[in-house]
Amino acid sequence: MTPSEFKQWGYRFVDWISNYLEHSDQYPVLSNAKPGDIRKRLPSKAPQNPEPFDAVLADLDGIIAPGLTHWNHPSFFAYFPTTGSEPGILGEMVTAALNVNGMLWRTSPAATELEEVVLDWLRELLGLPTGYKGLIFDTASMSTFHALAAARECLTDKSVRDDGLYDAPRLRLYASEQAHSSVEKSAMALGLGRRGLVHIATDAEFRMDVRALEQAIEADLRNGYRPIAVVATIGTTSTTSIDPVARIADICARFGLWLHVDAAYAGTAAIVPELRQILDGCERADSFVTNPHKWLLTPVDLSAFYCRRPDALRNAFSLTPDYLRTPEGDSVTNAMDYTLQLGRRFRAMKFWMVIRHYGVSGLQTHIREHIRLARMFASFVESDNRFELLAPVPFSTVCFRLRGGDGDTQQLIDRVNASGKVFISHTTLKGKLAARLAIGNLRSREEHVRAAWKLIAAQS
Amino acid sequence: MTPSEFKQWGYRFVDWISNYLEHSDQYPVLSNAKPGDIRKRLPSKAPQNPEPFDAVLADLDGIIAPGLTHWNHPSFFAYFPTTGSEPGILGEMVTAALNVNGMLWRTSPAATELEEVVLDWLRELLGLPTGYKGLIFDTASMSTFHALAAARECLTDKSVRDDGLYDAPRLRLYASEQAHSSVEKSAMALGLGRRGLVHIATDAEFRMDVRALEQAIEADLRNGYRPIAVVATIGTTSTTSIDPVARIADICARFGLWLHVDAAYAGTAAIVPELRQILDGCERADSFVTNPHKWLLTPVDLSAFYCRRPDALRNAFSLTPDYLRTPEGDSVTNAMDYTLQLGRRFRAMKFWMVIRHYGVSGLQTHIREHIRLARMFASFVESDNRFELLAPVPFSTVCFRLRGGDGDTQQLIDRVNASGKVFISHTTLKGKLAARLAIGNLRSREEHVRAAWKLIAAQS
Repeated sequence: MTPSEFKQWGYRFVDWISNYLEHSDQYPVLSNAKPGDIRKRLPSKAPQNPEPFDAVLADLDGIIAPGLTHWNHPSFFAYFPTTGSEPGILGEMVTAALNVNGMLWRTSPAATELEEVVLDWLRELLGLPTGYKGLIFDTASMSTFHALAAARECLTDKSVRDDGLYDAPRLRLYASEQAHSSVEKSAMALGLGRRGLVHIATDAEFRMDVRALEQAIEADLRNGYRPIAVVATIGTTSTTSIDPVARIADICARFGLWLHVDAAYAGTAAIVPELRQILDGCERADSFVTNPHKWLLTPVDLSAFYCRRPDALRNAFSLTPDYLRTPEGDSVTNAMDYTLQLGRRFRAMKFWMVIRHYGVSGLQTHIREHIRLARMFASFVESDNRFELLAPVPFSTVCFRLRGGDGDTQQLIDRVNASGKVFISHTTLKGKLAARLAIGNLRSREEHVRAAWKLIAAQS
Repeated sequence: MTPSEFKQWGYRFVDWISNYLEHSDQYPVLSNAKPGDIRKRLPSKAPQNPEPFDAVLADLDGIIAPGLTHWNHPSFFAYFPTTGSEPGILGEMVTAALNVNGMLWRTSPAATELEEVVLDWLRELLGLPTGYKGLIFDTASMSTFHALAAARECLTDKSVRDDGLYDAPRLRLYASEQAHSSVEKSAMALGLGRRGLVHIATDAEFRMDVRALEQAIEADLRNGYRPIAVVATIGTTSTTSIDPVARIADICARFGLWLHVDAAYAGTAAIVPELRQILDGCERADSFVTNPHKWLLTPVDLSAFYCRRPDALRNAFSLTPDYLRTPEGDSVTNAMDYTLQLGRRFRAMKFWMVIRHYGVSGLQTHIREHIRLARMFASFVESDNRFELLAPVPFSTVCFRLRGGDGDTQQLIDRVNASGKVFISHTTLKGKLAARLAIGNLRSREEHVRAAWKLIAAQS
């Protein structure tokens, strides 16, 4: 494809995207595809000869788009929504075109330094102190995995990187029973095992019970385990509850444990001054993760990771073969020294464009509005005595159910999702099935939330 | 940004990209930025208010682009080059706009099924048998990490996922001394430690010495270690040597070991029929990785991973919290069951567009041409008695040096790279510093390879 052909096709794709973004609600939000539907419409072998791009665009329209669940649909209220924002899409275009690999500073200085700059911007907006080293990962799962690998390396009294875990004391991690599954997956991957993670009970509002944490640590110490880290969550996945980080930090300080804060979803809300207190205590964390690709209008994937003990991270992961040694030495950050992955996309570009386009004020407005809408939806639930709320609503996610019980609530969720007009998810809270409505897509406005409630109330 | 504003800005960015791709050689290929140069030209705080996109574009031109090392420059011959191809860029635009998260089949059926389809296309082109489950990862580092985690889970006689590594026998991995650093990093991350990886000697052509492998395994068995996996490489990073996979597969079969093949760079060359034999023996591998984002015109990142024992992978990584349970059950692939990461970009899109645009014939032409150019360059080296080749040239990478020794060769590399006209990398082979020229960018043509030789010869 010549540059001028690219120009023509680029315009066509920009038109396609513009039209898609304007009319993403023309599709069912939750795909009604059956398993295999898409596969059977695609050829089983790669084309031997070049195909015209018209054919590609036709298949995008005819096969792929109808087979997707539309995360950009304004009534996508499942999981934690994301936004393919326009400036973010422009950023991804540039990233793909530049196509640099930022594994070393030298292999693209601007990629490394722009990453440092935008992560510093975000750190300051969150009210976190200086002294944190920022790194972009693809997902919060990887950010948390790296945090716990660093904790494993520096709190084991031996070199895990060299000798492995065999002779190590039995290590223990702690997180609330509401913590994200990535904590448990990290324990599995790191060789600590699922039993290496202790699930701490939560209170009536799904926050970690600090006294139970303390008791668990003390019991483990008595039994010969080696506690190494606590993962506190700001905005748990099910109910967006907020663990008492300051009190957890006290315990970590007392026992010498690594404190990692998983604020993947809710952390970015702290850019709003009146919400900054949600991060109280996080300034004492050893590491912290929040995902601009969730609520901060940045296309997937971009997870912002901060670490106050970068040497521990480096001890866990640095390994430089001859062919990657460069003359800059320690005057620069070579990202590969801190990460399991070697290859590194230029992810900072899209985030930079998002922040500049919306400005801090625009991002704040967006967060505030979603919280307002969630409270509005919660008030609808409260005002209808067929329903009940199952958890507080500190952010933009509402957990609710029909008082009738699990069967009725399941039927409600299924009917709503089968409508193709609204997509909500579910969770289980204290043994009860809950419907879960999360607001986080830029294109979700008051009318969509009101319509969702209308549909839900009518299906019940 | 409204859809119509996006259209206008999209066109401007398409124009920018088109111009950039046509004139990427206007920049020094290796950035001449000094540490901190880019950072100091950027504001230290995020903008409070929205900024016009004109300002963003101006900074892209004035600050970012000059601060990059240009992987698209036709004379980028360092590391393994990559290509921001036009159809790949179009694919990334669509991915960013759709912005789906393919963690579950249900969260975007077409993302899961298109991934399965394009990985099947590639598998067949490579001549690998059916029975491999394909998964896309970001990087080969992650693909290899997952392969070794699966081996660890199924060859340890205990549940590492549940109980960790503490009571496990001491596990051993084997790879040649030329294997990629990601093998060693995986050993570190998985809790096996660097000492859990045995580096096997290579022969005069940098291929794994199979007899030495056998002896190492036998010695480890005598000493109470538990061998679990061998990593063979097709196209090592330094010299692109090819391990004797069929003979290694025999040994793995004899000792019951997991065979993982790292063909990150060179594997895709097997789409050319006359090169298919480079994968001889790979049909017996338990897992296999090759990166379309290296030599197959797909923008970073996209690593194609194949596993013939997906249950082992699933045992190592599956963990489904209540809120992610879906009704489809085992009739579909839920990618999150096989991976450490939960979030999942729709990476298959760009690869699909690349294959359709070039067709298999176009991709084959591209691979063949780069190999022809590398052989041409090697013949230049051989015809100049100031130089010597340090390794065979089975693909598109040439390792060479000045006969004068390390000092002269280092000076040569430094001068060439400081010119801003050509970027080559280095490695160390049998204790000797080597200059390393790798061809893999779509835009690198005969004239660029000839010019590189002219510059190198003139600097010497």
